Amino acid sequence: MLPEPVKNFIEIFAALPSIGRRQATRLVFKLINSGRAKIEEMEKAVRDLKQLEICSRCFFIHSNKSDLCSICQSQNRNHNIIAIVEKEIDLISIERTKKFNGRYLVLGELAKTGELESAQKLRLNHLKDWIKKQFGKAEEIIIATNPTTYGDINASMIAKELLPYTKKITRLGRGIPTGGEIEFADEETLGSALDRRK
Amino acid sequence: MLPEPVKNFIEIFAALPSIGRRQATRLVFKLINSGRAKIEEMEKAVRDLKQLEICSRCFFIHSNKSDLCSICQSQNRNHNIIAIVEKEIDLISIERTKKFNGRYLVLGELAKTGELESAQKLRLNHLKDWIKKQFGKAEEIIIATNPTTYGDINASMIAKELLPYTKKITRLGRGIPTGGEIEFADEETLGSALDRRK
Repeated sequence: MLPEPVKNFIEIFAALPSIGRRQATRLVFKLINSGRAKIEEMEKAVRDLKQLEICSRCFFIHSNKSDLCSICQSQNRNHNIIAIVEKEIDLISIERTKKFNGRYLVLGELAKTGELESAQKLRLNHLKDWIKKQFGKAEEIIIATNPTTYGDINASMIAKELLPYTKKITRLGRGIPTGGEIEFADEETLGSALDRRK
Repeated sequence: MLPEPVKNFIEIFAALPSIGRRQATRLVFKLINSGRAKIEEMEKAVRDLKQLEICSRCFFIHSNKSDLCSICQSQNRNHNIIAIVEKEIDLISIERTKKFNGRYLVLGELAKTGELESAQKLRLNHLKDWIKKQFGKAEEIIIATNPTTYGDINASMIAKELLPYTKKITRLGRGIPTGGEIEFADEETLGSALDRRK
């Protein structure tokens, strides 16, 4: 009963993370009813993603003429301090705090096996080579994986790999999130908050 | 910090109903990381929506060679029974029940003012003319607006308009939804369920 283009759109959008069939169906009719210009606008938005390049140093995306992203090519940043993140969106979240002025390494989502995929090993090796050539040793490496059990396992593994290449290895501080309540904090979090009191 | 194509994609997707900025950001990186072929697949899915036509009789969408949708051109349906729906997705929901074998009129979302927009008046007039020419009077018109206060106001208004063109005007039955519990039904619903007991 549904025309092929509608079915196809729903199929593809429903396969995206956190969009279900119902939302995809609502979307397609919303789009159809907003007219040809809106459809073309979205078509272009999707098409233009093909212009994106991956930074040859940190593996974040960019659309610069050079092969470096805007962070890696910036002279105002301290390239001697490196934050290792899993996802691009983690990098963005850290950038939003405006508290970090170093560079990044985007590693890609880590498996729950505690082992790195070969592409991830390549990225880490790339970082090691770069540090060795640039500074001998980095000032600091922040391993910004999620504070979960798996994140912790992965973090120790990465730390072991990078230890010879940096003067200091750190992880993000843990404690009660701003706006959170002591009553509802789990023991682990509350314990960390006590340890790190100041 | 974000490349233009990424910003643009997020902007456009975040403007869609029930997709926020965070989800749009997650989407864009998901898409970028799934590679060029996936991006092209989605580009095509959006582009192909431009092939859709609107049925000249019921205003549902189609991609047929004729100017009628698959329902309106079907000889297996009873075109003398007409369901008036607001949205395409309402039509789809009714089709899924496989309990309706008539045709539809898609009116477009009704305003909360209890007045029809001019495009909606045109659609209703189009239906009146068609009924007059085809049958004199329709067998039945089902006004399938939502069972809300606004839906009710709109339904009475539409009913008044169509009364001269049909032998019978009905609305969808009300009662306790399947799987619902009496304890949690509001009085209005429970009252309807009693009235319509059988």
